[in-house]
Amino acid sequence: ASLIPRLPASSPTLFEAKKQKNLSFEAIAKELGRDEVAVAALFYGQAQASPEDIKKLSRVLDIPAETLESQLAGFPDRGRTMEMPPKEPLIYRLFEVIQNYGYAYKAVLNEKFGDGIMSAISFSTKIEKETDEKGEWAVITLRGKWLPYSRF
Amino acid sequence: ASLIPRLPASSPTLFEAKKQKNLSFEAIAKELGRDEVAVAALFYGQAQASPEDIKKLSRVLDIPAETLESQLAGFPDRGRTMEMPPKEPLIYRLFEVIQNYGYAYKAVLNEKFGDGIMSAISFSTKIEKETDEKGEWAVITLRGKWLPYSRF
Amino acid sequence: ASLIPRLPASSPTLFEAKKQKNLSFEAIAKELGRDEVAVAALFYGQAQASPEDIKKLSRVLDIPAETLESQLAGFPDRGRTMEMPPKEPLIYRLFEVIQNYGYAYKAVLNEKFGDGIMSAISFSTKIEKETDEKGEWAVITLRGKWLPYSRF
Amino acid sequence: ASLIPRLPASSPTLFEAKKQKNLSFEAIAKELGRDEVAVAALFYGQAQASPEDIKKLSRVLDIPAETLESQLAGFPDRGRTMEMPPKEPLIYRLFEVIQNYGYAYKAVLNEKFGDGIMSAISFSTKIEKETDEKGEWAVITLRGKWLPYSRF
Amino acid sequence: ASLIPRLPASSPTLFEAKKQKNLSFEAIAKELGRDEVAVAALFYGQAQASPEDIKKLSRVLDIPAETLESQLAGFPDRGRTMEMPPKEPLIYRLFEVIQNYGYAYKAVLNEKFGDGIMSAISFSTKIEKETDEKGEWAVITLRGKWLPYSRF
Amino acid sequence: ASLIPRLPASSPTLFEAKKQKNLSFEAIAKELGRDEVAVAALFYGQAQASPEDIKKLSRVLDIPAETLESQLAGFPDRGRTMEMPPKEPLIYRLFEVIQNYGYAYKAVLNEKFGDGIMSAISFSTKIEKETDEKGEWAVITLRGKWLPYSRF
Amino acid sequence: ASLIPRLPASSPTLFEAKKQKNLSFEAIAKELGRDEVAVAALFYGQAQASPEDIKKLSRVLDIPAETLESQLAGFPDRGRTMEMPPKEPLIYRLFEVIQNYGYAYKAVLNEKFGDGIMSAISFSTKIEKETDEKGEWAVITLRGKWLPYSRF
Amino acid sequence: ASLIPRLPASSPTLFEAKKQKNLSFEAIAKELGRDEVAVAALFYGQAQASPEDIKKLSRVLDIPAETLESQLAGFPDRGRTMEMPPKEPLIYRLFEVIQNYGYAYKAVLNEKFGDGIMSAISFSTKIEKETDEKGEWAVITLRGKWLPYSRF
Amino acid sequence: ASLIPRLPASSPTLFEAKKQKNLSFEAIAKELGRDEVAVAALFYGQAQASPEDIKKLSRVLDIPAETLESQLAGFPDRGRTMEMPPKEPLIYRLFEVIQNYGYAYKAVLNEKFGDGIMSAISFSTKIEKETDEKGEWAVITLRGKWLPYSRF
Amino acid sequence: ASLIPRLPASSPTLFEAKKQKNLSFEAIAKELGRDEVAVAALFYGQAQASPEDIKKLSRVLDIPAETLESQLAGFPDRGRTMEMPPKEPLIYRLFEVIQNYGYAYKAVLNEKFGDGIMSAISFSTKIEKETDEKGEWAVITLRGKWLPYSRF
Repeated sequence: ASLIPRLPASSPTLFEAKKQKNLSFEAIAKELGRDEVAVAALFYGQAQASPEDIKKLSRVLDIPAETLESQLAGFPDRGRTMEMPPKEPLIYRLFEVIQNYGYAYKAVLNEKFGDGIMSAISFSTKIEKETDEKGEWAVITLRGKWLPYSRF
Repeated sequence: ASLIPRLPASSPTLFEAKKQKNLSFEAIAKELGRDEVAVAALFYGQAQASPEDIKKLSRVLDIPAETLESQLAGFPDRGRTMEMPPKEPLIYRLFEVIQNYGYAYKAVLNEKFGDGIMSAISFSTKIEKETDEKGEWAVITLRGKWLPYSRF
Repeated sequence: ASLIPRLPASSPTLFEAKKQKNLSFEAIAKELGRDEVAVAALFYGQAQASPEDIKKLSRVLDIPAETLESQLAGFPDRGRTMEMPPKEPLIYRLFEVIQNYGYAYKAVLNEKFGDGIMSAISFSTKIEKETDEKGEWAVITLRGKWLPYSRF
Repeated sequence: ASLIPRLPASSPTLFEAKKQKNLSFEAIAKELGRDEVAVAALFYGQAQASPEDIKKLSRVLDIPAETLESQLAGFPDRGRTMEMPPKEPLIYRLFEVIQNYGYAYKAVLNEKFGDGIMSAISFSTKIEKETDEKGEWAVITLRGKWLPYSRF
Repeated sequence: ASLIPRLPASSPTLFEAKKQKNLSFEAIAKELGRDEVAVAALFYGQAQASPEDIKKLSRVLDIPAETLESQLAGFPDRGRTMEMPPKEPLIYRLFEVIQNYGYAYKAVLNEKFGDGIMSAISFSTKIEKETDEKGEWAVITLRGKWLPYSRF
Repeated sequence: ASLIPRLPASSPTLFEAKKQKNLSFEAIAKELGRDEVAVAALFYGQAQASPEDIKKLSRVLDIPAETLESQLAGFPDRGRTMEMPPKEPLIYRLFEVIQNYGYAYKAVLNEKFGDGIMSAISFSTKIEKETDEKGEWAVITLRGKWLPYSRF
Repeated sequence: ASLIPRLPASSPTLFEAKKQKNLSFEAIAKELGRDEVAVAALFYGQAQASPEDIKKLSRVLDIPAETLESQLAGFPDRGRTMEMPPKEPLIYRLFEVIQNYGYAYKAVLNEKFGDGIMSAISFSTKIEKETDEKGEWAVITLRGKWLPYSRF
Repeated sequence: ASLIPRLPASSPTLFEAKKQKNLSFEAIAKELGRDEVAVAALFYGQAQASPEDIKKLSRVLDIPAETLESQLAGFPDRGRTMEMPPKEPLIYRLFEVIQNYGYAYKAVLNEKFGDGIMSAISFSTKIEKETDEKGEWAVITLRGKWLPYSRF
Repeated sequence: ASLIPRLPASSPTLFEAKKQKNLSFEAIAKELGRDEVAVAALFYGQAQASPEDIKKLSRVLDIPAETLESQLAGFPDRGRTMEMPPKEPLIYRLFEVIQNYGYAYKAVLNEKFGDGIMSAISFSTKIEKETDEKGEWAVITLRGKWLPYSRF
Repeated sequence: ASLIPRLPASSPTLFEAKKQKNLSFEAIAKELGRDEVAVAALFYGQAQASPEDIKKLSRVLDIPAETLESQLAGFPDRGRTMEMPPKEPLIYRLFEVIQNYGYAYKAVLNEKFGDGIMSAISFSTKIEKETDEKGEWAVITLRGKWLPYSRF
């Protein structure tokens, strides 16, 4: 709802159609050959759609290709969906993980890889569900290329 | 350095000894039977040490047990190591992942689990290193219990 | 009034109908078998409506079921009603309680339960009115599951 | 640790002695005839100690009365222990309750009591522990006098 | 002008009519039997109108009673007119008084009344004009009930 | 306590002596021929002491005149005692009055005086205590010169 | 452009007409017998127009007098054109002058005038252009009444 | 006082000596052949001292040349004396001038000079005192080189 | 998309036409005899268009000259496209360079040029692409006039 | 001066020795075979020193190798030297370049390279001085690897 003014024009188009078609991100992702988090990110304007993606989205969601082409044209203007710190409880929990474990991650990563960073660009992420006797568990994996600082 | 005023008294004690002994978090973690991220978090005052942990830390780091007991007594006052948004480039990359993919994570998690959150308390995390022909990759895994909202 | 841009589309629909029907949250809550705070939260987009809730809301408020279904579909995007610190005097008083007693709550909760948190998800809350010779008293109860930190 | 610069001089004195004596807030509260949250608040400089409280604290904690009298003299300068939003996960959960349910509380309170606020001054609070088959539950009660807005 | 999006629907209605009728707050206040500051606050959505007030406002301002009833229904959502610190020079001067004299007020009030606060709810305020040889003086009076902290 | 780093060197000197002498601001104010709020402001470094004030303060508080002269020399650097919004509940109530009634004050003042401001410099303020059958009331008066905007 | 939502209704009217008539602020100022900065301020809603000003503006800009009277009626709600710190480079330079020289101004003003402030209300300002062999120079003059702090 | 942690080491040295010698900025400025605002800026670490300045300051203030040379060595790290918005009333008035008249200055400067800025580096400023029958007036002049935007 | 409310009216006109014509900034820049970064800045309202530029833009983009003249008239109101810190990952990387290397730049520039600044007004910038065996490299050059601080 | 609390322990050691030896960053850079900006960054704790760097710094600056080894051990904790936006005028100009040209850079970079970022890690930068008849020019070059977003 009130998130909409922060989103690109393509977002209501895509969400509307998804709801109409009653499709999950998982189902759409399968069609596109992409991960479901990447597809959700694409819906929120946080990932780029390739011409092939657009064609498939048009077909699976029954949206005229020209509409999608026009609304998904250009390069994503990322980072606009959220105000930080996030107020949404689910997203705050992820933020809190970084807030609490940030320096621990840095310490272990530096020890394992040296001086550098884990890329958020040369990067992928996924979500899995595990179930055991204690209940359900969400497992989020972040995988990024290690980039050492250039010496200059 | 300038992080120190934000840290509890135990932090310089532990880091100093680790440097003196030239031990990695991995090595200390093995001694404690804990994950290396948890151990680094403990060093930064973001995780609690059990009496058993204190005994082992005292032995492996050659710190008098009373010193550790006194400095690690009480419950961690978490969240003090960082100002958000983080300025440290490595930690900023993790923050950026949440900023960019936050709503995508929420959308997929809600779709997979329903209305709720992934706990950051009933939670564990780890770091792995992968190497392929493109270079080195850092893989961070977050695993949290799924908590559905209570109906009331 | 000016709160409206922060609220989901369902909010004006629900509030409008409630006013028309001249019903209290207490009355609606009784119909839904939920607590009145939960119902008010639902009106502000802070709680999820079950299909059963939607059916009952439609009947008691005389709103077409399709309208409600469409506007209440999806998962709540919580946390958007307020800017913190709150400027509304009534809500500020609650905020001030946390600001002043936050560490006292933590100290007593840690002492009673160990290292962990009181869940705000596996959680319920209610409001009661008490009257004595000194006047009227509002009593707010927060009840949350205790979640101990995982050891990892 | 790093909370200390925000606390009055009395706080380290009191916490140190409590640790030495190995007393719980509950035990001290019983001695003072006050609630344990009030006592913890007093330790953090968020509540005033009466002369009688000081005498009892001196006895039960073995602190010279003059020290306590001097350090607890004057009126509390409340609100200094915390930066808001809180970063401590336990306290954040309480903050989140206000953030998410603030307008729901206001709506229900206004409906029940009219135009006014729940006092945070003419106010008391307590913590209880409940246990059932699902685990442990923390129950926090806030009780404040209802103050209607003056008409002028 | 640009203040309008922050105001409730009743504000433009009331201000428009006041301008049309060319009435001062003083004149309207006399009709309502209220203070002119209270009436101005009511125009800005910061005070509640009683049914009697609405009837009188309708008559003196020539606004249909149903319009006013509908727009002034419900409880005020106070605090929305301003961003703090205020940028408006007149209002900033009042803010500056609190910023500079805040602790002096606290010190004198605590000394005169003990540990507590001056209520901003059980409260009234007024403005007077004085003229002497040096020019004109504005005199603002704040009068609030003293609320001592509860002992618990 | 933790307010001290924000205060000038003269503040601890003055407060210490006042406590030693067990004098109220009222008593000191009488000696100086000033208002008690002005004296408290002087203690917090928010008002200037005249040479005559210094002489009298030295005598009534038994502080060597040279100490006071040296510590109170120079012009006050006002505005440093507080972070806004104030967290102290007593001071917050005053801030809230400005936040809620700011535009009402402006509207009434403009109507009474024209385009201008109430000076916070050519200004005085005082606190009075009233008692009636409902309890005690604090009355704060702000009196400032009206300054019309220059036409240029 | 995007400044417009922050401006009063009169601003687009005035700017539009000025552009149409192709008049400089200097030319309009001459007509009004005011300084050109004051006229520009009036265009941005930062200064009040007298009835005489409105008549002249109506004539020189060819705007119906009623339109202007209605849009310029009431008292300016100053301070709304800008977010501070300013992002506009030209305005930032002025802001930077205050940021860098603020305490130097205070030190010299206090030395020259005693304890007080330079009024921004009983105040005028102007811009002049000087040219020498090094190029063009902008000269901004601020002239304000000195207001000594009242002793009370 | 509490400004000191923000100032360079040279500031207390210089202010202390100035107080000891009882010299005005005007007097020191005459010795240095600089403007008194520039000298005050130098005292606050906001302007660079030439070797000649240092020699003269050493002589007129009776400070060992080596002390001054060592403390005034290096390039000023400007902008550290103030938090913006300023809380000091005198400095706030200057800030308010920019806040209220910023866009008016821009409009007139652009009209007079074209697209560019007034330099705050190739810049000088001075303070003058005028007295007339209405009282004392402070006149601050800002003079900066006009820099047109490069076309590229 | 959601950037649009921050942009001047000319921006959608220009971007729309560019997309229609399928022209790169490089191609347009060649037509205008300007750098492509300057042209992109002009599209975002961050640079001024000369009458000649407008004529050429009109021709190359097939936009009526009057439309462009009207929308590009006046002086740019720079700095409105972005909130800082930037959330867009590409722009954040540039921001991070300043955050991390800011003092290093200052230290080296002061050493090379003395006390002053690199102008951002008398300034040009360009982007080049380099390719080597490691991949593609972006090279951004900033070239600004050195402005020494005036002595006054 | 007041920057020091933000810097690591190595910074005063290095700057002190550099001043003592009267060496430029250029001279030190030549010894280390690194760029002078990198060396200045190393002095501010923003770049890592290799063991070889430490050996050479020890020799050229006459600092005991153990001191340097101990103070430069570990991985830099970058980003701590600055508060953003920067108040230092020289650094603000660089910040302003990003603020004004950020979206122009993004537009041109995306057009030239596709969807991705310029790395600030796999990155180098340098400063050059150019002199022409108009005066001196500072030229800053940023060179970073282009990283395309991974498709996932």
